[in-house]
Amino acid sequence: MKIIETKSAPNARRVRMFLAEKGLLDEVQFEQVDIAAGENLSEAYRAKNLTTKIPVLALDSGEFIGESVAICRYFEALHPSPALMGETPLEQAQIEMWQRRAEFHLMLPVGMCFQHTTGYFKDRMVPVPAYGEQCGKDARAFMAQLDAHLAGSEFLAGPRFSIADITALCAVDFARVVKIRISDEWAHLARWYKQVAGRPSAAA
Amino acid sequence: MKIIETKSAPNARRVRMFLAEKGLLDEVQFEQVDIAAGENLSEAYRAKNLTTKIPVLALDSGEFIGESVAICRYFEALHPSPALMGETPLEQAQIEMWQRRAEFHLMLPVGMCFQHTTGYFKDRMVPVPAYGEQCGKDARAFMAQLDAHLAGSEFLAGPRFSIADITALCAVDFARVVKIRISDEWAHLARWYKQVAGRPSAAA
Repeated sequence: MKIIETKSAPNARRVRMFLAEKGLLDEVQFEQVDIAAGENLSEAYRAKNLTTKIPVLALDSGEFIGESVAICRYFEALHPSPALMGETPLEQAQIEMWQRRAEFHLMLPVGMCFQHTTGYFKDRMVPVPAYGEQCGKDARAFMAQLDAHLAGSEFLAGPRFSIADITALCAVDFARVVKIRISDEWAHLARWYKQVAGRPSAAA
Repeated sequence: MKIIETKSAPNARRVRMFLAEKGLLDEVQFEQVDIAAGENLSEAYRAKNLTTKIPVLALDSGEFIGESVAICRYFEALHPSPALMGETPLEQAQIEMWQRRAEFHLMLPVGMCFQHTTGYFKDRMVPVPAYGEQCGKDARAFMAQLDAHLAGSEFLAGPRFSIADITALCAVDFARVVKIRISDEWAHLARWYKQVAGRPSAAA
């Protein structure tokens, strides 16, 4: 079993942190692909993951699983403990809700802000800086909402650490590249950040 | 148990179709909120779903579940049969992968094309038409990829109908509002569309 990734990319980190929390990091081999150089745009890579995104999980059967959350779901189903995607139906739904909020309102706008304001991938897309700047504002606005939410919740989805915290941590850390940081006003978000970034898995 | 939705919106349809496939449509009450008039931007609605998006599931316990896929996951966990999110770990991962591909590469760009080129929500966001046009192109490009994929696969994630097909169907139908339609060249996508749109649940 092998994961093909770009180590510095936030989505790759999400999967490594998830595996580290499960104690599975040493069960998987890692192979690097250089997305800055466009190695993921080759036909060989596209045959593994048609979206050309990283990471992708290569199973021993010859099958491939793309999409970070789908890779996590595979390991969650194979190794349910510790549960990072919930146990009861309500908990599964709440974690899915917060994981998606963290993804659509933080990870995605931070990524779009990066792609559309820095021109990092301008060899393969046309940046629209006005859109990127809006995304930066949207990400900041969601961080303020998260701060208010975390005033009454230990983790994003309640009392239990979950994949939602992993997504949010990786998004907050990646946001530094577009100069978005946790504001001094956001004491609850800062408390959560310190707690989650301090887990051994965060260094995976 | 009640779902608050806007009946004409594609994300609301996804959840209704999912419930119809499970035979659960009559178990849930529906209440309409007018997103065009901005009813979802009220403090009362935001207390139910902080992102202000629809639909949201109101549980009898007083708790709320936002995010269409999180609502679906709740019903999948409570009523596993027929499985729409997979049974084995591999199947769960493959369905999650295709559901996410359909969402990020079709539903989302179609929605962004709509919001950024029509100005439908210009009272609450600043449209960036250049970005919207790019999204339209991205959606078309993904439909071509889907066509190639469906040459060798009955449904998006393999031989079994799943939530990935629901997401893709709702996205393809919604794409008409931005004049994106299945091209005559895409025979496999057209075959799949006819099959999935013909299910009774598609009318839910």
